[in-house]
Amino acid sequence: MTNDFTVTSLERDLGVALQARLDGRTKPPGSLGKLEALALQVGLIQQTITPQLRHPRMVVFAGDHGAANAGVSAFPQAVTAQMVANFLAGGAAINVLSRQAGLAMSVIDAGVASPCKVPASSEVEFIDAKVAHGTANFIEEAAMSASQCEATMATGAELVCKWHLGGCNAIGFGEMGIGNTASASLITHALADAPLAEVVGRGTGLDDAGLARKRELLGKAAARVAGRSLSPLDVLAEFGGFEIAMMTGAYLAAAQSRMLIVVDGFITNAALLVAHAIEPAVLDYCVFAHCSAEPGHRRQMSYLGVQPLLELDLRLGEGTGAALVFPLIRSALALMNEMAGFADAGVSGKIGDVG
Amino acid sequence: MTNDFTVTSLERDLGVALQARLDGRTKPPGSLGKLEALALQVGLIQQTITPQLRHPRMVVFAGDHGAANAGVSAFPQAVTAQMVANFLAGGAAINVLSRQAGLAMSVIDAGVASPCKVPASSEVEFIDAKVAHGTANFIEEAAMSASQCEATMATGAELVCKWHLGGCNAIGFGEMGIGNTASASLITHALADAPLAEVVGRGTGLDDAGLARKRELLGKAAARVAGRSLSPLDVLAEFGGFEIAMMTGAYLAAAQSRMLIVVDGFITNAALLVAHAIEPAVLDYCVFAHCSAEPGHRRQMSYLGVQPLLELDLRLGEGTGAALVFPLIRSALALMNEMAGFADAGVSGKIGDVG
Repeated sequence: MTNDFTVTSLERDLGVALQARLDGRTKPPGSLGKLEALALQVGLIQQTITPQLRHPRMVVFAGDHGAANAGVSAFPQAVTAQMVANFLAGGAAINVLSRQAGLAMSVIDAGVASPCKVPASSEVEFIDAKVAHGTANFIEEAAMSASQCEATMATGAELVCKWHLGGCNAIGFGEMGIGNTASASLITHALADAPLAEVVGRGTGLDDAGLARKRELLGKAAARVAGRSLSPLDVLAEFGGFEIAMMTGAYLAAAQSRMLIVVDGFITNAALLVAHAIEPAVLDYCVFAHCSAEPGHRRQMSYLGVQPLLELDLRLGEGTGAALVFPLIRSALALMNEMAGFADAGVSGKIGDVG
Repeated sequence: MTNDFTVTSLERDLGVALQARLDGRTKPPGSLGKLEALALQVGLIQQTITPQLRHPRMVVFAGDHGAANAGVSAFPQAVTAQMVANFLAGGAAINVLSRQAGLAMSVIDAGVASPCKVPASSEVEFIDAKVAHGTANFIEEAAMSASQCEATMATGAELVCKWHLGGCNAIGFGEMGIGNTASASLITHALADAPLAEVVGRGTGLDDAGLARKRELLGKAAARVAGRSLSPLDVLAEFGGFEIAMMTGAYLAAAQSRMLIVVDGFITNAALLVAHAIEPAVLDYCVFAHCSAEPGHRRQMSYLGVQPLLELDLRLGEGTGAALVFPLIRSALALMNEMAGFADAGVSGKIGDVG
């Protein structure tokens, strides 16, 4: 598999009818701002003037990074598996926000280093898709082999197809992996035309000394491939995590299945950079939830030419920003579908307008 | 009544316990950004480490402006009553967004020029508190008398006390009144130290010629009081609408009752400027929902030294921005109340941290 995916750009013909429907609601044209753009985008994705979210789902991919043990994170690697257990017990931030937003939730072990404790029952779907017990240390060698990378992407795509067949038409991706901001920084450096120094941040809470050490280690990793011409898949195999590679396949399959995709923070955007480099039209299906406090995130969005909906200084990951945006999307669609028209409501238009 | 209200600043002692509770949840400290600040603020308002929204309500004050017939709006004055009917029929944007956010909704006729058609049954509470059939034309004379202004504020305060006694601890205010951005511009000019030209905008959709005419008319209105020293209540009586005056009293009563107040757009912020000039501590109880496309709104917030949560280019009014923020507030409180702690979840802290 070099590229099994075909993502087509959105056909825009229906845009006229969608805009007319929005303009016919009892409000001045355009006065609902970005919510109108959201409703229009979902209408184009679903090719209907009555777009709706069906069985929306939050999917958290978890994986460990060999580089974590080299000192790129403030937290020990064991936290990845501990947080998976927390997800399955319903106690993490993404659980709370998914419940609030009415999202079903899945957690995927894409490559957690230690075994994941799975409770007898959980509100959260757990899928064991472990490729290996963490990646190799990308500071010294490629994080994964090319064939591992392709198989991991294919698994992500298959999972999305399963949910899509089950009726899901809107999906958000989150991640858990100690050390994965380091991986995201290297991918962003390679694919978003960004100096490494500008896209390395504090992750979940490094102090100044920790940040300096992270910068030095990632400089070594980048130098390891200097001079080689890397394809997007090469970049993913060199620096990715299994959770990032699986998410990359998931993005491509979701866009190919014409699902609405809600994009979260820095790490999920790194996976999107890879998907975008393979099939640029994937962006047409994406809503960008927020801009996080991690400095590379803004750089990614400026490279992709996209704007975030929220700016709440989040820096947690897990898909939390994406979950927070689902109520806004629901509201945008409800406005389109439930508001009265001028004539039905007996409301006059502008002075001087006919009708 | 020159000032029957006493609003006390928030006692901050509980802040330490609230922050400790947030920091004990399974996430890096501070990683939920502005949501943590929100949860902390509501905790301080309610003086509890388990803050909750109870019977949250959206209240839309409607009133007409004598100046509307002079040409300050793109819409005819009849639209105010028509939109009140639309609110009561459930077809307006604020109805849709209040339903989405789980808010009870009230519509108050504070001074609509024409009779409001009230249906036999409605999901929306309607209150007839009409002071008069619209204000006088503030371009030529004071919009209302001092005694009308005080009585209108008192009515707004009484309504809030009624809902508060019914168990409501969080409230958002919206407005409907053709011409009321003009009123808000004059109030903002008078109370927020702002040049008139910078706080006059297109309202619900004036073209360039309409905007020029609005500027000229509002210049005349401002010139009418030039040289006089106006108290906040004088400003409200000179340039306010009945919906704005009633909302001013409502703000003060809500803060005095220790309710969380969600502040919407340009017009609702103009009422807040008056309330703030009377009792500055009212700000402690306010969350600022969004920054609208009306230019004076940013100026108001910079004068008050506050930041909006959302920037969605809304310019509809009705309370729509405030309604959109309630799900974020609910999420912030749910994170505080429902997330697991590190010890309970068996999740490790930072490398080097004790415990």
